[in-house]
This record gives sequence, C-alpha cells and structure tokens, in this order.
Amino acid sequence: MHEARREVVIHVCVTCRREGDDPLAPRPGTRLAEALERLVPAGATLALVECLGNCKRGCSVALSSEGAWTYVFGDLTPDAAPDVVLAADLLAASPDGLMPWRGRPEPFKRGMIARIPPFPLKDAAE
Amino acid sequence: MHEARREVVIHVCVTCRREGDDPLAPRPGTRLAEALERLVPAGATLALVECLGNCKRGCSVALSSEGAWTYVFGDLTPDAAPDVVLAADLLAASPDGLMPWRGRPEPFKRGMIARIPPFPLKDAAE
Repeated sequence: MHEARREVVIHVCVTCRREGDDPLAPRPGTRLAEALERLVPAGATLALVECLGNCKRGCSVALSSEGAWTYVFGDLTPDAAPDVVLAADLLAASPDGLMPWRGRPEPFKRGMIARIPPFPLKDAAE
Repeated sequence: MHEARREVVIHVCVTCRREGDDPLAPRPGTRLAEALERLVPAGATLALVECLGNCKRGCSVALSSEGAWTYVFGDLTPDAAPDVVLAADLLAASPDGLMPWRGRPEPFKRGMIARIPPFPLKDAAE
C-alpha cells in the first residue's frame, strides 16, 4: 500500500551551546547539523538556523511540514542526529499532522519544547 | 504613509495550569484566552488550542503569520492579554517577519520559548 508522506523541514540551531562548553570547540548545534547533513533522507530538507530561541535548552531542532503541527525539541545532544531523523520520519508518515507519542525516540519525549498548530489555519471555524 | 501589515494568528493554550493552581478554578490559560477574546484587534485571529506543548512554562501563546517567523512565549500570566496584543502588533508591523526585541513587553523578552523560521521555505538556497 502506498502511503502519502509529508515533506518535512528539519531546522537545526547551529549556535546552540551549553554553559561550560569549551568556547573554542565546535558548537554542539553545529556538530548536530553536520551529522544531520550526512543522514537526512529523501523527502526531508535540512535548514540551518542561527537561533531557534531555545537557548536555555539546546541543542534545538524544529520540524515543520505543510498542513502539520510544527514541533520544537530541545535538550538534544550532538549525537542525536539518528533520533532527529526518526522523529522527522514519524511526522512525515503522520496522516493527521500530529507526531505520535508512541515510537518517539526518548529525547523527543523528554525534550518537547513546543508544538504549534498548522498554519495557515485551514478553517477558522474548525 | 501606508504600511503593509501582516495578518497574525494568536494561538492560546487553554489548558495551561501551574503546579499548585486550584484545580477547581478556571485554568489560567482559559482566563487568558477569555481576556483576549475581548481585545483581539482587526487583522488578528484568536485560535484556542488544547496544548502547545509548553506545559512546564505556561501560560503559553504562539504567534504565526504568513512569511514570518513563528514565536512561542511562555511564563505568561492570565492578565497578559494586553501584552499579547502588543506583541502580535509588533509582528504584524514587522517588514522582515522578525519580531523586534525593542518594544517587546517585558514578559515577551523573558518568556521567549522558541522561534521557528517562516514555512514553507521561500528559497532553500537562502
């Protein structure tokens, strides 16, 4: 059975750094982004962002897809790239535009920062 | 001079409650939403949401506008409605789709939770 899949944009903050991180070392957000560049599958687009505003809880990733909820995750580590891909895949496969809780990698349960309804509103009366 | 203004959607979480809140009292998020219903100006749309995923730092508001960054704010109080309208107005008037820092009501400086780039991406090469 062929299932429709959503195109997903994976936004990664490349600026994220935690207190105490070596200021001369590559930033954790940049390391996460570099790992993602090698892993992002067809149907997903990687977008590097200067700041997702989640500075207290980096590394930060936001997932957007047309007609779907937008999700922001934080408290991610630079080695989270495979989990980011799994989470993006969950959203890509979601029929209703919501990322199911079940099947989320653990960091994407603990690290949920926010979710925003699809925009533009499909029907203000809904 | 006539300036173009953006239509803004103000998403308000009506479920938000803080630890220790009276479980029988109306939820702070609902009280904020009710106050906003009386204040939302022309050019803005109020959207009540069950959960914006920012449960640790409610009350929560997300501001969306076509071609603009989406902003999520938390740690808001039920009496923040006038500040929400001011923040929405800053985004509505923004020529570049970014909410300026200057002029933001204090709770919208302290309470920034996340910001997400415009979607869909205008130009992936940018």
